[in-house]
Amino acid sequence: MPYFSLLKTAPKGQARAGELHTAHGTVATPVFMPVGSQATVKTLTPDEVKGIGFNLILANTYHLYLRPSVDTVAALGGLHRFMAWDGAILTDSGGYQVFSLAPLRRLSDEGVTFRSHVDGSEHFLTPETVIQLQETLGADISMVLDVCSTYGDSRAQVEEAMLRTHRWAERCRRAHSKSSQALFGIVQGGVFPELRRQSAEFLTSLDFDGYALGGISIGEPKETMLKTLEITTPLLPEEKPRYLMGVGSPEDLVEGVARGIDMFDCALPTRVARNGALFTSKGRRNIRNAAFRLMERPIDPRCRCYTCRNFSAAYLHHLFKCEELLAYRLATIHNLTFIHSLMRNIRQAIMDDSFSELGAEFLAHYLPTDEATRLSQKEKWLKRRGQEQ
Amino acid sequence: MPYFSLLKTAPKGQARAGELHTAHGTVATPVFMPVGSQATVKTLTPDEVKGIGFNLILANTYHLYLRPSVDTVAALGGLHRFMAWDGAILTDSGGYQVFSLAPLRRLSDEGVTFRSHVDGSEHFLTPETVIQLQETLGADISMVLDVCSTYGDSRAQVEEAMLRTHRWAERCRRAHSKSSQALFGIVQGGVFPELRRQSAEFLTSLDFDGYALGGISIGEPKETMLKTLEITTPLLPEEKPRYLMGVGSPEDLVEGVARGIDMFDCALPTRVARNGALFTSKGRRNIRNAAFRLMERPIDPRCRCYTCRNFSAAYLHHLFKCEELLAYRLATIHNLTFIHSLMRNIRQAIMDDSFSELGAEFLAHYLPTDEATRLSQKEKWLKRRGQEQ
Repeated sequence: MPYFSLLKTAPKGQARAGELHTAHGTVATPVFMPVGSQATVKTLTPDEVKGIGFNLILANTYHLYLRPSVDTVAALGGLHRFMAWDGAILTDSGGYQVFSLAPLRRLSDEGVTFRSHVDGSEHFLTPETVIQLQETLGADISMVLDVCSTYGDSRAQVEEAMLRTHRWAERCRRAHSKSSQALFGIVQGGVFPELRRQSAEFLTSLDFDGYALGGISIGEPKETMLKTLEITTPLLPEEKPRYLMGVGSPEDLVEGVARGIDMFDCALPTRVARNGALFTSKGRRNIRNAAFRLMERPIDPRCRCYTCRNFSAAYLHHLFKCEELLAYRLATIHNLTFIHSLMRNIRQAIMDDSFSELGAEFLAHYLPTDEATRLSQKEKWLKRRGQEQ
Repeated sequence: MPYFSLLKTAPKGQARAGELHTAHGTVATPVFMPVGSQATVKTLTPDEVKGIGFNLILANTYHLYLRPSVDTVAALGGLHRFMAWDGAILTDSGGYQVFSLAPLRRLSDEGVTFRSHVDGSEHFLTPETVIQLQETLGADISMVLDVCSTYGDSRAQVEEAMLRTHRWAERCRRAHSKSSQALFGIVQGGVFPELRRQSAEFLTSLDFDGYALGGISIGEPKETMLKTLEITTPLLPEEKPRYLMGVGSPEDLVEGVARGIDMFDCALPTRVARNGALFTSKGRRNIRNAAFRLMERPIDPRCRCYTCRNFSAAYLHHLFKCEELLAYRLATIHNLTFIHSLMRNIRQAIMDDSFSELGAEFLAHYLPTDEATRLSQKEKWLKRRGQEQ
C-alpha cells in the first residue's frame, strides 16, 4: 500500500482529498493536527481529543528533548504510551523551535548549538541526531531538520538557509532507518518564487514520503503567504502529501486546501481558546465581552461540541471572568471541534465536487481578524512564545 | 419520607450510615462534598464529578452573589442548569467567606456590611437576604447565616458571636419558605465546651433539617478539633444529619465519621491536587519530587481512577514540571476519586459492623502531613485564599 492515497482532486483549483496510511491508523485528508508540543494537547485528555474526532496530532521533538528528555519517553514505552494516545503522531524536528525559542544558537554545516529556553543548558543537534530522536520517540511521521529564515531576511540569507536545509535533508534521508515511520522533507525559500522552485525540485529528487512547506506564516502579509502557496504546491509531486506548517486559522485552512494542501498544524485554535476567543461561523467571538453576560444560548447554537451541548455562553463568560481552569478546557473543546468539523465538511465537499461552493460560502460569512490586528497579535505571540509553548 | 434516614449506627463509637433525600436524588452518608464555590468544581466538568461517583456538591452563595450575581444565575435557569449539574447542591450561606475573604466588614444585629474581595464594591447581607439568595439559586440544602469566630478569640468574643448566630438562625428559620429545600443550622461556640452545648441546645430547639458544626478546623490544633467534635455531636438529635464544615483531609474524614459526622466539605483535596500533592494509602505524595521522574507505574497502582488507569507517575511529573493545565485536572480526578472511594469504603464498613477495624487500619498506614507543616500550610492558605477561592 502506498503511504498516501489520493482519492479525489477538485475539478476546479487544487483541492484534494486523500488518506494517509500510518502505523497508527488511516488519516483522512485534508487534515488539521492539534498541537501537543509537550506530549499533551493543552488542557485536554487524549480521550477528549479522540472524541472530537482527531486521529493525528503533532508533538514537538525540541520540547520533548529538553523535557522530559527523549530517553525518558523511551524508557516509559515511547511517546504513544507516555501520553496514552493510540492515534498517529507527527513530530516536528525542532528546527523551527531552535530558531525561534532557543537563545544563543550557533549554526554550522555540522549542526546547531543552542541553549535551552527552560534552563539555559547547552545542546548540540545535527540532522542525524534529530532523526534518531524522532525514531526513539516512536513518531509515525517525522520531519527533517531545516534552517528557518525570518520574514524580512535578504534573498542571499534565505538562499543560504535553503541550501543548508537541502544538505541537511540529504543527511536526514540517509540517517532515517525506521520503515514504519514516514519522513517528510521541508521546502524553504521564503517569499522568493525562484528559491521555492529550486527547493521543491531538490527535495522532490530525494523522494520523501511527504513534503512540508516551511517558513510560511511567519509574519508576512496574508497575500504573500497565499501567493507563495500558489507557486509552490504545483511543483510538488501529486502522489505525495503536502503539509503547510504552522497554519491553522479557519480562513487559512480553506485557502490552503484550495491551493492543494493536505495537512496543517497550528497552535492558534487552542491558544486563542485559552484567551477566550471562540470560533463561530461568522468569525471569532471574545467570550469575555459583556454581550455574553446573560446569553442563555451556547456560543454557537448549531455546534454539537460538549461545550455547546451543555453550557450557555453566559456560563463560559462567568468561568473566564473568574479565571476558572474549566474555562480553558471548554473553549479548547469548542475551537477544536469547530476546526475538525470544518475539515470534515471540506473533505466531504471535495468528494462531492462542491468544494469551491463551500469555500466561497464559508469565506463570505466568516469575518477573519483584520490584517493589522492579526499581524500585531502574531508579533506579540512570537515574542512571548518561549513561556507559552 | 423524612429528610434523613439513619440506616445504621456502629456498635462501638458514633459512626453512622444513612441517606439524605434531596430534591435532586438520594445521597448516601457519610458523604464528602467536592467544593464548587464558583459554580465549578475546579478543573472538572460536571460529567467527571459525576463519573467519580459524587451526587452532592457544595457551591458558595458569597462567590455567586458577587459573580455572576444570583439574579444572573436565576435568569439562566438556576444553579443546576447554569453549571449543568443534575445532582444535589448544598450552598454555604457565605457567612464564613464574609468573615474570612471580604475586607472592611461591619457587623450589626441587622446584618453584615462588607466590601467585595473582587472589585471593592460595598454590600449588605442579612439573614433574610441570605435565605432568599439560596432559594433563588435553587440549592437543595441551604445554610443559615452565622457569625464565625477566629481561633484565639476570647470566650466573651466567641459567646457574643454565638448569641448573634442564634438570633440570626431564628430569623433564617422564619424567612425560609421553600419546602423542597432543606435548611441547616450551624452550631458555633469555638473551643469552649459550655458554649458548644448552649449552641447545640438552642439550635436543636429550632428544629432544622440538619445541623452543621461551624468554626472548626480554623487553625486550632487537631487534638482540640477532635475534642470539640466529641463533646458536640452527642448533643445533636440522632435523627438529623450532622455536617462538619471545612474538613476534608483523609485522616480527618475517618476521625470525623468516628465521632458521628455524616457530611463533610473541604477544598483541600482539590487544592492540594493543583499543587501536586496526591493521596495514596500511605499518605500524600508530591508528584514534583524527582523520585517520580521515571516511575512507569501510576501514582497509586491500586487506584481505579482515570488518571491511574491511563498515565504513569512519570507522565504526571512531566506535566507538573511543564505547568501543563492537564496536570491539575488529572491530579484533581485522582484526589477526588481517593476521597470518594474512602467514603464508600467507610460506609460499607459501617454497614458491615467493621468500621472501627477499617478506621484503625487506614490510620495505621496513612501518614498525615505532620502537625507543624499542616498548621503552617493552613496559615499560608488562609492568607492567600482571596485569590484562590
